Amino acid sequence: MPQSSESGFSRVAAIDLGSNSFHIVVAKLDHGEVRPMERLGEKVQLAAGLDEARQLSEEAIARGLECLGRFAQLLRGMPRGSVRVVATSALRQAKNRQVFIRQASQVLGHPVELISGREEARLIYLGVAHTLGDGDGKRLVMDIGGGSTEFIIGERFEPLLRESLQMGCVAFSKQFFPDGKLSAARYAKAYTAARLELMNIEQSLHSHGWDNVVGSSGTIRAVGAAIAAMGLGKGEVNRDGLLKLKRQVLKCEQLEKLAIDGVKADRNAILPAGLAILEAAFDALGLEIMHHSEGALREGVLYDLLGRHAHEDVRERSLSALVERYHADPQQALRVEQKSLLILSKVAEDWHLQGPLWAERLSWAARVHEIGLDIAHSQYHKHGAYLLEHSDLPGFSRHDQLIVSLLVRGHRRGLGADRFRELGEDGEGLLRLCIILRLAILLFRNREDEAPILTLTAGERSLQIIFPDGWLQARSLTQADFEQEAQWLAKAGYELTLA
Amino acid sequence: MPQSSESGFSRVAAIDLGSNSFHIVVAKLDHGEVRPMERLGEKVQLAAGLDEARQLSEEAIARGLECLGRFAQLLRGMPRGSVRVVATSALRQAKNRQVFIRQASQVLGHPVELISGREEARLIYLGVAHTLGDGDGKRLVMDIGGGSTEFIIGERFEPLLRESLQMGCVAFSKQFFPDGKLSAARYAKAYTAARLELMNIEQSLHSHGWDNVVGSSGTIRAVGAAIAAMGLGKGEVNRDGLLKLKRQVLKCEQLEKLAIDGVKADRNAILPAGLAILEAAFDALGLEIMHHSEGALREGVLYDLLGRHAHEDVRERSLSALVERYHADPQQALRVEQKSLLILSKVAEDWHLQGPLWAERLSWAARVHEIGLDIAHSQYHKHGAYLLEHSDLPGFSRHDQLIVSLLVRGHRRGLGADRFRELGEDGEGLLRLCIILRLAILLFRNREDEAPILTLTAGERSLQIIFPDGWLQARSLTQADFEQEAQWLAKAGYELTLA
Repeated sequence: MPQSSESGFSRVAAIDLGSNSFHIVVAKLDHGEVRPMERLGEKVQLAAGLDEARQLSEEAIARGLECLGRFAQLLRGMPRGSVRVVATSALRQAKNRQVFIRQASQVLGHPVELISGREEARLIYLGVAHTLGDGDGKRLVMDIGGGSTEFIIGERFEPLLRESLQMGCVAFSKQFFPDGKLSAARYAKAYTAARLELMNIEQSLHSHGWDNVVGSSGTIRAVGAAIAAMGLGKGEVNRDGLLKLKRQVLKCEQLEKLAIDGVKADRNAILPAGLAILEAAFDALGLEIMHHSEGALREGVLYDLLGRHAHEDVRERSLSALVERYHADPQQALRVEQKSLLILSKVAEDWHLQGPLWAERLSWAARVHEIGLDIAHSQYHKHGAYLLEHSDLPGFSRHDQLIVSLLVRGHRRGLGADRFRELGEDGEGLLRLCIILRLAILLFRNREDEAPILTLTAGERSLQIIFPDGWLQARSLTQADFEQEAQWLAKAGYELTLA
Repeated sequence: MPQSSESGFSRVAAIDLGSNSFHIVVAKLDHGEVRPMERLGEKVQLAAGLDEARQLSEEAIARGLECLGRFAQLLRGMPRGSVRVVATSALRQAKNRQVFIRQASQVLGHPVELISGREEARLIYLGVAHTLGDGDGKRLVMDIGGGSTEFIIGERFEPLLRESLQMGCVAFSKQFFPDGKLSAARYAKAYTAARLELMNIEQSLHSHGWDNVVGSSGTIRAVGAAIAAMGLGKGEVNRDGLLKLKRQVLKCEQLEKLAIDGVKADRNAILPAGLAILEAAFDALGLEIMHHSEGALREGVLYDLLGRHAHEDVRERSLSALVERYHADPQQALRVEQKSLLILSKVAEDWHLQGPLWAERLSWAARVHEIGLDIAHSQYHKHGAYLLEHSDLPGFSRHDQLIVSLLVRGHRRGLGADRFRELGEDGEGLLRLCIILRLAILLFRNREDEAPILTLTAGERSLQIIFPDGWLQARSLTQADFEQEAQWLAKAGYELTLA
């Protein structure tokens, strides 16, 4: 378990804005131990509020915000950085997600991060692994959410394979049992759809192999409880139990009339869809038994948050992997990173770029700014930006990936000031980070280790650079380079003066 | 030298639509030997006809087409495949290039291919290497074109590093000597601009290193001739000669009044710009002497064309490198390639997809369709398409890369019928290739080696598949998969029926 003392927080919290339920867990940090103090979950069913045009309905948004209003009471007095809020499938799908995310961030007083399916898979595994402890051999972990289902193969605390499929108990219920009617034919369609989705990953799961199977999520717990109530187990899911439960479920013709021992009535609407997904996974993967783990996404988010503060930041590993994979020059990246952080320290106050967040973003972008060269020399800043926006980068939210992508895209030729400013309140600050990054790169265009010490004066829309006496005059090429730069910055609305 | 007998042609030709001049070379194939029969060059100065909005003027288009009308007379009776026409920098820049390319293809009766700067560099090296023969050690080859300048380091027939910079004698002349006036200050600006461009590649050229320096292109030949006329050499460019020539040139105040011994007056307008680029290269790279080679882009195109027919197709190597770099599963690619070619053979007649061109394109796409998985699982067809569109793929024209990119993008989920149909006359055929590719992929979704033999009937907008008796019925998942496929094809206007 990561050490928590280094985080400097006495309490931390994680909130998971799932497609079926929202969950919060608040934990106390006690001599490096994490002690959960509060857990709360509400069936918001956000995914049920998505229409065909992938717009989230006003009712669903209101339901979600009301729930978050209640969660917010548990967060009072907690400082920024001690709470992490992640949004998953329903918000990945929703085209109007910004409407919700903006309001949700306000209600909670902490930023909401949209995460990718694979990032969700990584965090689920982290939650399950911390709950189960070291354990023996390889684990297959399955989590059936409202809008997506994750499969992870991992060993100890390390996920080896992370997959996320676009199928979930709320979404499937809407698709295959739209009017609440239940029949064997409808169930069969849901089952087949799940099998088709599973075909995308069966092969790679099998080729990794596993020793134990663990299920997380409410659906799997509920199915296990129902099987236990039939006297066929103690909470685990097994093949025999699954089939008997299915037979029992299909005797009923309406979702709302389901009455399954061991399962609360508020799960009726989504149980058959979840069961079809679970049965499809058992068949496709040849499973016999699946034990349930209480650890889930929110626990993973909590441990990940603690890891970041305890120098186990998985984002660092992700960036290093990217640099290695795309053969970027690590020495040049280091020079540019150090120099740009130095420049940042000089203008941070005037440009309102104080605090670790800005330095972190600048440092990320500096480290990966050249990866696009591996695709092609021409327009390589755009290729780098594409890779950063679309690659699977464990630890990063979608928004963070987008920010690094924009910084890299703007590091040469046009800055793309509009793209930054479209981001809203942080936009101007990010544009300024990009200007800093560009200056550091200009100083190292020859890829040599030395660069001059600059004196910098930053204004609202200006930057003055004073070079050491005679330094620039002795370097006509660099001078021409900076003069060209002044023209690029002018297009972004900044005046660069050199002295 | 590649064997030519296998090509089946008695004559081959290469045309180079350069930014300064258009060139043609027609060669006879005589018992495996290439004997150039005709060479023609005209100073069309296409790059001079580009306006600020990167539109090619009507006059420039007319000049180019007139020249091609004369070239066309040399191509009479030459079959498709025996002539290759490449377009370079000015047409890479021009936004209205399609207007020119379409008409040029009609006038010549052979397709015009736009090639990237690095592909141009590869072909220049090929031309120079064949002219010089084996030679000793590593060569640095420089070619100053009208719109771009290429640098290649290679050994024997193998280019090791290919770079293309956006600077050329016509473009720089327009930029730095716009009204025909010549001065030391203007020359210095052109020189500095060239040095700044060179900074992008200096480091990587130096780290490869070279033993000999060879220059191709009219500018370098003319400078060498002027230096020889001054009694400072025998046609090679050397530092001393360069500086003296520069001094002589700068005595004159107007481009049109230049009178340099050994240089034809029709080069006056572009000589100072070319000289500035050449001097910048000498300084940036620390060169002392550069010998001139007659081999150039057009010779490279000719030898590349012959290579394709003689089983030395560099495109094959490019695709293999891509598959390896992005860790695509080669076995799956092979299964899909073989099956899709088999399907093609069954529908080729009805769908007008006969001839090697279609099979070649299908085979390319099949081999690389999974490369995007290396970036991320989600939307991997789009990532693969991005890589194919933007990667540096030796041997491929821009158009071929775009075609493979579209086929890969359409291989799962929506086909993107509009994107194909926008391509014009080949569009429907390419869409059909994409349908064939998808079917082959569907048959191997389980990545096993066996797939059924299908009976296929292709109509104008329909495809009927007859499976072996009982085969589909025994595989409900595959059946569901094909039913889903019928829905995708319907969106592209094709009716898929299964029996």
